[in-house]
Amino acid sequence: MKLILGGVCAAKGFRANGIRCGIRPSHTDKDLALVVSDVMCNAAAVYTTNLVKGAPIAITKENIADGKAQAIIVNSGNANTCNADGPEIARKMCQLTADALELKAGDIVIGSTGVIGQPLSIAPIENGMAELVKGLRYDGNEDAVEAIMTTDTRKKEAAVEFELDGHVCRIGGMAKGSGMIHPNMATTLIFITTDAAISSEMLQKALDADVKTSFNMLSIDGDTSTNDTLAILANGLAGNPEITAEGDAFDIFKEALHAVTSDLCRKMAADGEGATKMLECRVTHAPDEKSAQIVAKSVICSSLLKAAMFGADANWGRVLCAIGYAGVPLDVERIEVRFESAKGNILVCENGAGVPFSEEKAKEILLENEIYILIDLHQGEASATAWGCDLTYDYVKINGDYRT
Amino acid sequence: MKLILGGVCAAKGFRANGIRCGIRPSHTDKDLALVVSDVMCNAAAVYTTNLVKGAPIAITKENIADGKAQAIIVNSGNANTCNADGPEIARKMCQLTADALELKAGDIVIGSTGVIGQPLSIAPIENGMAELVKGLRYDGNEDAVEAIMTTDTRKKEAAVEFELDGHVCRIGGMAKGSGMIHPNMATTLIFITTDAAISSEMLQKALDADVKTSFNMLSIDGDTSTNDTLAILANGLAGNPEITAEGDAFDIFKEALHAVTSDLCRKMAADGEGATKMLECRVTHAPDEKSAQIVAKSVICSSLLKAAMFGADANWGRVLCAIGYAGVPLDVERIEVRFESAKGNILVCENGAGVPFSEEKAKEILLENEIYILIDLHQGEASATAWGCDLTYDYVKINGDYRT
Repeated sequence: MKLILGGVCAAKGFRANGIRCGIRPSHTDKDLALVVSDVMCNAAAVYTTNLVKGAPIAITKENIADGKAQAIIVNSGNANTCNADGPEIARKMCQLTADALELKAGDIVIGSTGVIGQPLSIAPIENGMAELVKGLRYDGNEDAVEAIMTTDTRKKEAAVEFELDGHVCRIGGMAKGSGMIHPNMATTLIFITTDAAISSEMLQKALDADVKTSFNMLSIDGDTSTNDTLAILANGLAGNPEITAEGDAFDIFKEALHAVTSDLCRKMAADGEGATKMLECRVTHAPDEKSAQIVAKSVICSSLLKAAMFGADANWGRVLCAIGYAGVPLDVERIEVRFESAKGNILVCENGAGVPFSEEKAKEILLENEIYILIDLHQGEASATAWGCDLTYDYVKINGDYRT
Repeated sequence: MKLILGGVCAAKGFRANGIRCGIRPSHTDKDLALVVSDVMCNAAAVYTTNLVKGAPIAITKENIADGKAQAIIVNSGNANTCNADGPEIARKMCQLTADALELKAGDIVIGSTGVIGQPLSIAPIENGMAELVKGLRYDGNEDAVEAIMTTDTRKKEAAVEFELDGHVCRIGGMAKGSGMIHPNMATTLIFITTDAAISSEMLQKALDADVKTSFNMLSIDGDTSTNDTLAILANGLAGNPEITAEGDAFDIFKEALHAVTSDLCRKMAADGEGATKMLECRVTHAPDEKSAQIVAKSVICSSLLKAAMFGADANWGRVLCAIGYAGVPLDVERIEVRFESAKGNILVCENGAGVPFSEEKAKEILLENEIYILIDLHQGEASATAWGCDLTYDYVKINGDYRT
């Protein structure tokens, strides 16, 4: 398996494009993205657990209930959530897309991201559709990923190439998401394409298993969005024998999928709203995987620790504190904590108590922009990884006046 | 019942003092507080649920296991947590206090607050004890509350006067806490004194019931501290017949206690680290009290909403979002949301969807420093209140480099 370029266009037979249609007249950024497969795909998706759900989620659920989809339409600038006419607008978006592509509305996956509770006008989308479809290209992934960004500052794409039964297969994806990120199923918007042949059922199974150790282990600010959607389309053009059951091919597919999703997680964490640092918390020697996950996520979600990391302050007491309130029964007196980055690794806590360490060395390590918080619980064999970012002035600034 | 002044010295027979003994040589603030009753008290306490517990908690638990205590010794500047010699130091502090007051070490309640994981030297405490005891006064509450502050910017005291069986009784308290506040039992450090006569058992019962609707409904940053302690001493000097069972007198006592604790909650919220606004979220017409509490606390804990409040931005979609991920089954389409302050009240969401409102009026309301987020779920009869504060640049600043 190797990492490759190409995002959602990495797999065979997928075209994409992104344009500015003018959803927010005052903004000049691209705001409408389209991804289309040359042939019908098997499809699967996971969604936010928030009770307040964006209208696009209900429509996508309807449309892929048959396990099939061929295109993905996404707008940024407006979440189409908590609007009385939300479902109607989402359906119209699907119909407009289907008409322009000569597909059926029931084969369109739809996503929206942006402000909640402001009506979404269909006019700019209708007006922009012809241009959007005309510009579809087999290397249009960069335009598409750009068009789904909101407060994101970087495009987030990933792709891998691997073999199934001698056939070269690819999985690629794009993600947007910078704030309101604390997925409890998927995260804001992630779209993945693959040319591997795999049934809808096995695709859904792979996705359900994957999110537990990928997007569900990512938190920017503890707020689970109303619009989280992760959808995957598999068009089978790689020519491998279709995966219809568990086995070696399914395991290889899952491994490739996780390479894409965990890479997107890292990129989303690094681009968290206002973030200056990506934080990765690795918990090892936990009594069981669930406990390891809970501890890793508790640490990554601590506002106090996040602020300390912003200040490059080796305040390991806040790591212990967050482990302690995670809600997992643990023997605190075995816990070991280290901070690590490209500048080295430093032991700060052993047997649950502080050890003398060089503050200068710790500062040097923590001034890097990728920080690893290594927690060895010394009480089992399970492990887990969670991703997050530091809490900064800019997070407050971005969210103190987002709507204007 | 009326609110009065006097804090921990409001009740008869309680003296207090606070001095600087030099726990952190580089700081000039007071750092050692003492509260003493003229006679032995019935005592009760609740503590943090964090698995990582400060050494003072274990010692206080031992000391009030018999339901009795007569004095409270507290230091700021060092939490005495995650230190190998923590329990030994905490015991020494109790012994020094007991010796100076001619009491038994087993009758001392002890608390520590400050940095985690740095050894606490006994020397400054030993050296300061004589001065601390010499300065004890029946109006020394202001010195005591000042000495337990860390990043607090305001002294937090409250007291009430009420009658039990014709006897005038008082309950007064002091609290410290500004960050690492998300109590799951009590909150950072709160000490309450009363001259009402009440058994240890009923005192504990009153406290256990009270924290569910007071300190457990307060969150500054979602981090449950390692040292949270709420202790109450009742010396019986008011002369009322001792409360030993449920009944009218117990109900009056609980009401008076809640007046003190909820007032301290509001004061702690207003003085949250970096806060410019106190937020009070009132949830009404919920299916049951537990659901109302979960929803109120979810809203008050949302980083996105807290940042919006800092920006005086009526971003009610974030209120809906936080209700939606609270984990309580609700009919979203009945929810009504209003913002309120001294400048008025504005409806922003009805039947789960936005309604047109004046942004100017909303801004005027939200520029005040006490904001009420009123959520009417329209699906039951239960209600709950939670307290918090906005998320500001200063929160990040304070916590980005707290240790130095």
